Amino acid sequence: MTAVDAAVDAEDAAALEVRSPVDEALVAEAAAAIDAGDSDALIATLEPLHPADVADLFEDLDPERRIGAIEVGGAAIDADFLSHLDETARDGLLEGLAPAVTAKLIEQLDSDDAVYALEDLDDAAREDILERLPGADRAVVEQALSFPEDSAGRLMQREFVAAPAHRTVGETIDRLRADSNLPEVFHDVWVLDPTMRPLGQTPLYRILRTKRPKRIAEIMTAAPQTVPVGMDQEEVAHLFRQYGLLEAAVVDDAGRMVGVITHDDVVEIIDEEAGEDILKLGGVGGGADVEGVIGTARSRFVWLGLNLATAVLASAVIALFEDVISAVVALAVLMPIVASMGGNAGTQSLTVAVRALAMKELRGPEGWRLVLEETAVGLLNGLAFAVVAGGLAWAWAGEPILGAVIGAAMIVNLLVAGLAGAGVPLLLQRLKIDPAVASAVFVTTVTDVVGFFAFLGLAALLLL
Amino acid sequence: MTAVDAAVDAEDAAALEVRSPVDEALVAEAAAAIDAGDSDALIATLEPLHPADVADLFEDLDPERRIGAIEVGGAAIDADFLSHLDETARDGLLEGLAPAVTAKLIEQLDSDDAVYALEDLDDAAREDILERLPGADRAVVEQALSFPEDSAGRLMQREFVAAPAHRTVGETIDRLRADSNLPEVFHDVWVLDPTMRPLGQTPLYRILRTKRPKRIAEIMTAAPQTVPVGMDQEEVAHLFRQYGLLEAAVVDDAGRMVGVITHDDVVEIIDEEAGEDILKLGGVGGGADVEGVIGTARSRFVWLGLNLATAVLASAVIALFEDVISAVVALAVLMPIVASMGGNAGTQSLTVAVRALAMKELRGPEGWRLVLEETAVGLLNGLAFAVVAGGLAWAWAGEPILGAVIGAAMIVNLLVAGLAGAGVPLLLQRLKIDPAVASAVFVTTVTDVVGFFAFLGLAALLLL
Repeated sequence: MTAVDAAVDAEDAAALEVRSPVDEALVAEAAAAIDAGDSDALIATLEPLHPADVADLFEDLDPERRIGAIEVGGAAIDADFLSHLDETARDGLLEGLAPAVTAKLIEQLDSDDAVYALEDLDDAAREDILERLPGADRAVVEQALSFPEDSAGRLMQREFVAAPAHRTVGETIDRLRADSNLPEVFHDVWVLDPTMRPLGQTPLYRILRTKRPKRIAEIMTAAPQTVPVGMDQEEVAHLFRQYGLLEAAVVDDAGRMVGVITHDDVVEIIDEEAGEDILKLGGVGGGADVEGVIGTARSRFVWLGLNLATAVLASAVIALFEDVISAVVALAVLMPIVASMGGNAGTQSLTVAVRALAMKELRGPEGWRLVLEETAVGLLNGLAFAVVAGGLAWAWAGEPILGAVIGAAMIVNLLVAGLAGAGVPLLLQRLKIDPAVASAVFVTTVTDVVGFFAFLGLAALLLL
Repeated sequence: MTAVDAAVDAEDAAALEVRSPVDEALVAEAAAAIDAGDSDALIATLEPLHPADVADLFEDLDPERRIGAIEVGGAAIDADFLSHLDETARDGLLEGLAPAVTAKLIEQLDSDDAVYALEDLDDAAREDILERLPGADRAVVEQALSFPEDSAGRLMQREFVAAPAHRTVGETIDRLRADSNLPEVFHDVWVLDPTMRPLGQTPLYRILRTKRPKRIAEIMTAAPQTVPVGMDQEEVAHLFRQYGLLEAAVVDDAGRMVGVITHDDVVEIIDEEAGEDILKLGGVGGGADVEGVIGTARSRFVWLGLNLATAVLASAVIALFEDVISAVVALAVLMPIVASMGGNAGTQSLTVAVRALAMKELRGPEGWRLVLEETAVGLLNGLAFAVVAGGLAWAWAGEPILGAVIGAAMIVNLLVAGLAGAGVPLLLQRLKIDPAVASAVFVTTVTDVVGFFAFLGLAALLLL
């Protein structure tokens, strides 16, 4: 390959990556415009960007400059970027601006986006802003906020397109053309009965390929999937994923249609939920959106404190066996191996269990089958590593009995790791405790305690 | 609350959960029909189910019964369930059936689903099936398979709706009504120039609310986001997520449109990628789809083996200090605390870094800013836990010097944990190694080695 070929290849590879239009130079340009109070320059920088990219740029500015940007740019900045901004940045911005300015921004948004922007503000700040919204907007937002957090009611858009069953395709198209009040984006015409209950869902692509005289009810998908207004967003996401939905009807307790949820809201949730699970499993749940070093350190302190407690518990187990350690110092050298292997095997099992629970793959008896399987897997790997670690310990210490002790402890600990790794998340789920948050502490405590106890206990029995 | 109220509440809560129609009874019913070779009973069980639910039911059957189901049900089973089946189950089923039977199933599928079903089979099995497909289907599938795995070319559907710029809304609708060859599902009419390059994207909802004489080019979104055919699916998912896309045009090297990717394919990928990261971080990457206890145990063995190697390394560090441990056995009791705290703090930092990398949040200098921040967070928590753990050790051992040793080691190890936890994933990403897979081993090795070395080394200096 010549140098030119390599250069072309590198260029090709770069073309296949998504490059954000927001780079350091652009952020610097925006910052300079804000500092100079130059509204025209700021708008010229932001105008060509998609709202999602404007949000990225805002995230790259200091918190004070974000506020400055709105003060400088004013109403010329498209408020849609607020829906794409991360929570901490958004809340800081909206609370930092004068309530009248924030209200002007919120007014520009669709009802679901307005709710999304306001829901995490503290009550006083939210009241200040709501008071300044026009009456109709305010009523819609307040009603949405009356639904529980993370429910379908918060997520839904109240505007949708509906038709009675007798309407024809031709009439439907004529009405759509005449209606100036349509939602900005829609993918289905919902067929409702006279009491507003959804009878069927007619995707636009089906309307477009059907002749005018046909009745819309003849081409609808009957008995469509509906979402109760109180359903949790995680369950909603599962429905969209399972059935590849694009739009779903939200219904009240009486089964009347009150709104729709669309695919783009759900993509964000799927992503959020998976991301939350990753962070929770890593011991940083909830703390990921905190800003600043001190805030972050504080948010991690609790988890580390919990870990210290479990480490002290493990140390207490070791302290029981000080005699045997002072008789055979090699035990102190080898003991972390058993605990570490148990911790890792337990993490493997718990990761599989937590993910399977999140994906609703453990229906009925499958949960207990998983526990059984994981325990068996733990036993098998325990046997395998008993041989390996036992052999290593024997070779290093020159004592077959030390190999036997580490081998036996390895079998016990890896078996327990599989049992606890799969069992603890299932148990927590039954107790309505989020398994992604709490499983890891329990499981590693179990594997540490069992690991040290089995290893040192056996050693005390056989060596003293 | 009365018992009746409680019962009603429990019922309400149940209504807000998504219940799979596939339960034990249904699986047993299907299994009985398969065992009896009763085609009518099997079809009666499967017919009312969504293909995604049929797939769930198949996953709950033993591998032999899955094959039996197709043999019993024959062509009356809708092949669409194949796209929803997990990889192991699908590959086992397709390879277990006679190639002619498999070919009949594949023939029923859209081109992108056929590719998805066939791509992971081994070459011989795939060839056997491809040979039996009708010529046109075979050519399409073979061309798609010529694109790299996980690329946009594999993912795209080749059927889309296009129109030249001069066509009016009325003409477009008339043509759609007359065309019997439309894709089953579509959301946009793509406006192409004479060389097939996309000029714009016109969503159906915009066509439906526009009067017939208007030209389609007047209502299109110009210069739409396009996806190069070789782009990796992870990048494609990022585009859909960032811009809330519903459908994107896939273009070849010359910029000509060759297919579309739709939202439902991408939801699956977003989910898959996030799930993969969770599993990789938990040390079970790749092995999640293996079936059977022995296969699973084997797939986890490598990761545990790697962990054994790092544990042995940590033990070697401890072995350097056997003298000081045998002089002060309390050190053996306390030393796991420092290593464990470092391991947890490192995991926190690496989780944040890996997730931020996956979400493309670390643009340019932000990566190094994160390393700095995480190191500072590590230092702060190191100071905090130096006080706590130092105090505990002092109180327990009655020796202030032991408290000082554990405190100093804690500061060093948590600082290093922050540095390595954020730095290692960034470094691996630069070296084109998947940070989700490899970071954890490196980071815990560092925190174990540094933890034991700092604690025992300081003890040797101060206590001997």
